[in-house]
Amino acid sequence: MLKNVKVPLSGGRNYDIWIGPVRELKEKLVPFTASTFITVADTNTAGAAAAMGLPEPVILPPGESTKDFAAAAMLCGEAARRGLDRHSVFFAAGGGVIGDLAGFAAAIYMRGVRVVQIPTSLLAMVDSSVGGKTAVDIPEGKNLAGAFHQPSAVLIAPEFLQTLPIRERIGGLAEVVKYGFALDQDFFAFLEDHAGDLTAPSPDPELFRTIIRRSCEIKAEIVAADEHESGIRKYLNYGHTYGHAVELISNFTLSHGEAVAIGMTAAARLAVRCGRISPQLAERQETLLRNIGLPCRIPKTMPSKRILEIMARDKKNESGAVTMVLPSGLGRVECVKFRDHAGLEAVAEELR
Amino acid sequence: MLKNVKVPLSGGRNYDIWIGPVRELKEKLVPFTASTFITVADTNTAGAAAAMGLPEPVILPPGESTKDFAAAAMLCGEAARRGLDRHSVFFAAGGGVIGDLAGFAAAIYMRGVRVVQIPTSLLAMVDSSVGGKTAVDIPEGKNLAGAFHQPSAVLIAPEFLQTLPIRERIGGLAEVVKYGFALDQDFFAFLEDHAGDLTAPSPDPELFRTIIRRSCEIKAEIVAADEHESGIRKYLNYGHTYGHAVELISNFTLSHGEAVAIGMTAAARLAVRCGRISPQLAERQETLLRNIGLPCRIPKTMPSKRILEIMARDKKNESGAVTMVLPSGLGRVECVKFRDHAGLEAVAEELR
Repeated sequence: MLKNVKVPLSGGRNYDIWIGPVRELKEKLVPFTASTFITVADTNTAGAAAAMGLPEPVILPPGESTKDFAAAAMLCGEAARRGLDRHSVFFAAGGGVIGDLAGFAAAIYMRGVRVVQIPTSLLAMVDSSVGGKTAVDIPEGKNLAGAFHQPSAVLIAPEFLQTLPIRERIGGLAEVVKYGFALDQDFFAFLEDHAGDLTAPSPDPELFRTIIRRSCEIKAEIVAADEHESGIRKYLNYGHTYGHAVELISNFTLSHGEAVAIGMTAAARLAVRCGRISPQLAERQETLLRNIGLPCRIPKTMPSKRILEIMARDKKNESGAVTMVLPSGLGRVECVKFRDHAGLEAVAEELR
Repeated sequence: MLKNVKVPLSGGRNYDIWIGPVRELKEKLVPFTASTFITVADTNTAGAAAAMGLPEPVILPPGESTKDFAAAAMLCGEAARRGLDRHSVFFAAGGGVIGDLAGFAAAIYMRGVRVVQIPTSLLAMVDSSVGGKTAVDIPEGKNLAGAFHQPSAVLIAPEFLQTLPIRERIGGLAEVVKYGFALDQDFFAFLEDHAGDLTAPSPDPELFRTIIRRSCEIKAEIVAADEHESGIRKYLNYGHTYGHAVELISNFTLSHGEAVAIGMTAAARLAVRCGRISPQLAERQETLLRNIGLPCRIPKTMPSKRILEIMARDKKNESGAVTMVLPSGLGRVECVKFRDHAGLEAVAEELR
């Protein structure tokens, strides 16, 4: 019943993504719970940790503001007090915030111990739990401190989606649309065909197993080809340049997925402006995002200047030029450098 | 005039250690200052940064208490405010604290940027600047959070030793004696022959160039063979198990080198107790340490129970057993696991 996606990496660091019911996933935990371990969850995901049979989790407040240096320091301290050594394991049972934070703590505790990701949100299942990017936020920007630290396994139970607030599920769908629009035109067409079902009050398990698996396959392939984002892994940042900026300015009242939907809309509009894609293709993306219930407009309260300021210090940039991932067709993207910020700002203005 | 030690590593991460006068080392900075950069120093080493031609350093208070999560977070924030990107460089101009801290900040800023180590203390020149171990302290222990992050170059100007307080130079000699006693019997004999010159009020540049170079060669060879300390790199922890414990309990009134000297004495005594070396060989090490002016006794105020408690959570440990690096002859060490702590505690008692 378990589905398996392999992430092939150098140096014996291959790992498996397992997708299936909790009762079967629990067996995959056994090789890890044989060591000393610590489980990290938030108040919304402590139940998922319990369902997986992981006792005494460290329970943090939910939300992006949890993902800071102080929390990483606290987790390292707690791990030390519980006697964890270099052979111990961190379990991250939660959404993207818990995965990034616990993954970062595992990356630095004693200079690196194993982490097993147990994503509970759609966003974490299709994106953040896979690929080894871990981070915390600093006041100057999101994810500005972190580490590449691959998990030793990713265990995905789509049944956790049943109890997820629908807004969170919709947020996760932004990254799913990203995989399709940026990297796989067939997958994009599949999502267009199923837009109504994706936001049904009770998610169809079979449908979600399918889209989670395809998303993980796409991500695994890219991570295996470019683990440290010196090349094509940058493509996964499609929608994330404007996205990060509006997410930060909203003080995280926009969810990550909502911000990415806005960011993809902006990137596609910029691609139209540069003559890289047709207005019709950009429109097609906006229609799907809207049909899913995702926002495509920048809130009016956000000054374009402030958005540009934050984009100017994006991690992908080099020597002052803003690097954007822009579509050049359906399922195809490229990196494009902008030294002149006028076009970037015009798109931000247009979308307000 | 510059001497060169190569550190061969996989994946194009080879780097050079350059040893020589400031005016020649400055040329080695050029490929790095072509990028945006940030320089980190403390109040005692800001002059060294200036001598190397590095403007506007971030200047921190000297001392171990600077090496914490808050300082790492501050450096990441400052790097972001200065517009540093993934291609930028951190320069660490200082002793072990600045090297570890700035190295850690570089390891995590945007998930890793280049760092160039410019060690100003003997300890940093012969040990901490080489090999890529970076870390911060947490209340539960020293270096419990960190990263393996190799420098892109190490630039060593022995002339910085001229202005160093003699106690700091003597502290650095503890690690030099460690290389000899644990790994190179000829080097140990050389140090015995020059014990008096090593602590002369004005250090002989030629002598120090020699011992720095030999120390770097030994460390480079070990790091190249076992970068992530899964094997022989553990040998470099000789003296550091008792050492870290007494350093922490002293609240860093013992310098790292002084603590390591006590730790080497304790480890050698333990090896005698286990029948691994003769009492005469342990005595030979104590004599050299004493002749150099290093302590070989645990302060009477330190309870042995507390020392054992801290040793029990050393990073080298596994499943509750304390892993000690013990000599088995002059220039030879091995890892030995102690499940029963009685012998460890007896040695701590004996040395008080």
